Amino acid sequence: MAILERRDANAVAYLTMNAPERLNALSDEMLAELQSAFDTLATEPSIRAIVLAGEGKAFCAGHDLKQMTQGRQAEDGGAAYFKDLFTRCATMMQTIQRLPQPVIAQVHGIATAAGCQLVATCDMAVAAKGTRFGVNGVNIGLFCSTPMVALSRNIPRKQAFEMLTTGAFVDAAEAQTLGLINRVVPADSLSTATTELAETVASKLGAAVKIGKQAFYEQLQKPLDAAYEYTGDVMVQNMLWRDTEEGIAAFLEKRPPDWQGQ
Amino acid sequence: MAILERRDANAVAYLTMNAPERLNALSDEMLAELQSAFDTLATEPSIRAIVLAGEGKAFCAGHDLKQMTQGRQAEDGGAAYFKDLFTRCATMMQTIQRLPQPVIAQVHGIATAAGCQLVATCDMAVAAKGTRFGVNGVNIGLFCSTPMVALSRNIPRKQAFEMLTTGAFVDAAEAQTLGLINRVVPADSLSTATTELAETVASKLGAAVKIGKQAFYEQLQKPLDAAYEYTGDVMVQNMLWRDTEEGIAAFLEKRPPDWQGQ
Amino acid sequence: MAILERRDANAVAYLTMNAPERLNALSDEMLAELQSAFDTLATEPSIRAIVLAGEGKAFCAGHDLKQMTQGRQAEDGGAAYFKDLFTRCATMMQTIQRLPQPVIAQVHGIATAAGCQLVATCDMAVAAKGTRFGVNGVNIGLFCSTPMVALSRNIPRKQAFEMLTTGAFVDAAEAQTLGLINRVVPADSLSTATTELAETVASKLGAAVKIGKQAFYEQLQKPLDAAYEYTGDVMVQNMLWRDTEEGIAAFLEKRPPDWQGQ
Repeated sequence: MAILERRDANAVAYLTMNAPERLNALSDEMLAELQSAFDTLATEPSIRAIVLAGEGKAFCAGHDLKQMTQGRQAEDGGAAYFKDLFTRCATMMQTIQRLPQPVIAQVHGIATAAGCQLVATCDMAVAAKGTRFGVNGVNIGLFCSTPMVALSRNIPRKQAFEMLTTGAFVDAAEAQTLGLINRVVPADSLSTATTELAETVASKLGAAVKIGKQAFYEQLQKPLDAAYEYTGDVMVQNMLWRDTEEGIAAFLEKRPPDWQGQ
Repeated sequence: MAILERRDANAVAYLTMNAPERLNALSDEMLAELQSAFDTLATEPSIRAIVLAGEGKAFCAGHDLKQMTQGRQAEDGGAAYFKDLFTRCATMMQTIQRLPQPVIAQVHGIATAAGCQLVATCDMAVAAKGTRFGVNGVNIGLFCSTPMVALSRNIPRKQAFEMLTTGAFVDAAEAQTLGLINRVVPADSLSTATTELAETVASKLGAAVKIGKQAFYEQLQKPLDAAYEYTGDVMVQNMLWRDTEEGIAAFLEKRPPDWQGQ
Repeated sequence: MAILERRDANAVAYLTMNAPERLNALSDEMLAELQSAFDTLATEPSIRAIVLAGEGKAFCAGHDLKQMTQGRQAEDGGAAYFKDLFTRCATMMQTIQRLPQPVIAQVHGIATAAGCQLVATCDMAVAAKGTRFGVNGVNIGLFCSTPMVALSRNIPRKQAFEMLTTGAFVDAAEAQTLGLINRVVPADSLSTATTELAETVASKLGAAVKIGKQAFYEQLQKPLDAAYEYTGDVMVQNMLWRDTEEGIAAFLEKRPPDWQGQ
């Protein structure tokens, strides 16, 4: 079995991290496989949504501390390796946001440190009841500085600060209240609920979702007037597509759209 | 009856979109009337709060798709018209934020696409129980890219992303939890509740609310130190007004203020 | 008794504003004492968390309006004094964020205007049930423009706007829902709950909390890629410390860490 498995169904790609004995840690191998899988998916317009899940007891427990400790044996104490590692990790995280398809985290067990960052980075997240979320690196003296980039763009400041400096976990219900995840479902409905959400997204016009996802993150970083100027152009472009013309015509004529591209 | 009606009472202007047969769609005419009404209100210091409501079954269902479809008959397929339309719409939305007076959306029925953007853009919003909010353009292949500018500055990211890519509606209670609206009231108390909120705001010193509203949006876009430098200057200016001196004196002397300007 | 008292216990410094007859107003003297205390604490690595509380009926009722009114007697009507006052206040607030140690507000009674700003500015806040929060300067014609810088970086926009333009108070439960505070406890458990939170933070590696707190606010103001580049470097630096190496080794060996610096 590969460390990252992929299965496709109904225009949705299901990626499963498969290193349960390491709680799906983001080892060099796992990072490389995720990067490669996402890079491939970026070129596949027939896939219109992506689900990321973890095999075993946990979604993902963050970086691989054993492997990182081995990295210390280099002459520089690991400095170059760590720099490269965090760069690769941040690149993988940003690749998720840059993908044309929405990515949904399907979370269970625990999502800690860079594993919690992965949840925060995905566009949406569904969690099983009982899942616990934490950025608990502070407990071992390694502040979750890169995970906080994603976390603090999902939840309010004071709650993010508390999680980061106390290492305390929040449960799935609180994670939903805070805005870290979209919904909580019983554990035995988890894959059904995620699939339903993914297939809903996949049923839309893929080109519209693609242009919209890109614009979502772009405009968030712009001042209001620039955000409107930018998204106004996106709307014009979107309006001129054949499939959007058909979508609007179908709506006005109260019939299903006949999309060529979907 | 005009497509946009205005009624004034107790220093509050009540604007009512009046195209119920089109669910108060933001047609060229409606946009022009809103722009004109807001431009006029910007020059009327005797009005200290504004309420925006919709006649009929819905607050506002977004752009006028029939009119947009007619725009396609131009030689360029509508490109110039759409560009102009989204520019006019974004200008109207930003005019709301730039008005000296707070603007309160009084929402019922549905607020969808640019109608939901209108709710997100108003400074405050009160909704009737049962109101449904959505940015559902994705269902017809037209991603709600401009509405998302306002929406994503009101509610958490993951929830905004879900609304935008699934087209799903949220009800009034959820909209309040997310931060999209300020309060939910029974349908038969809607206008009373909005009026109460508007009159509370209108009872304050108008010049203070004006300088404060402007500073609210300005400082949000600045780094912390620049935000403090800017608002510190606003505070000094505010302190030096005769009516603020009177307001503080009245407070210290435990009597009502005798404001000249209000 | 001094206007600001300090007591240290278990690596936590407890600061208590002690001007209960003035509801701990941020007078020139109080601002100076707070600034001085924080400047001193910035140089004390043996202190790993700070609690800020208020003596008497209220946490803090904001600026000292009597003193400000006296300032009007200057030839310029107080302009230079007010400018200096708001600069000193903003400097003190930003000093809290720049401190190496997390600062926890222990709030009871009322926290209004600049007192509410103080709560919003602290990294975390614990409040007694029954505490009321407000930015109610608008009631006396002085819009809470500087408090809103901190408030609007803690809670959603529409709710911040409502508090600022209506002057309405929110209670502790609502303040927690909005994100202004971390937890609400019965009044007789307040100091216990705050101490527990402070001691939890103080039990972590101080250098990690320090580098993390600084990075928290820095990265929030950066675009995503710059935030990752910056925090990646922070992580590398953090990884290379002796105490972090020990912390990770201890975790892998399932034993408590032997930290030299804490």
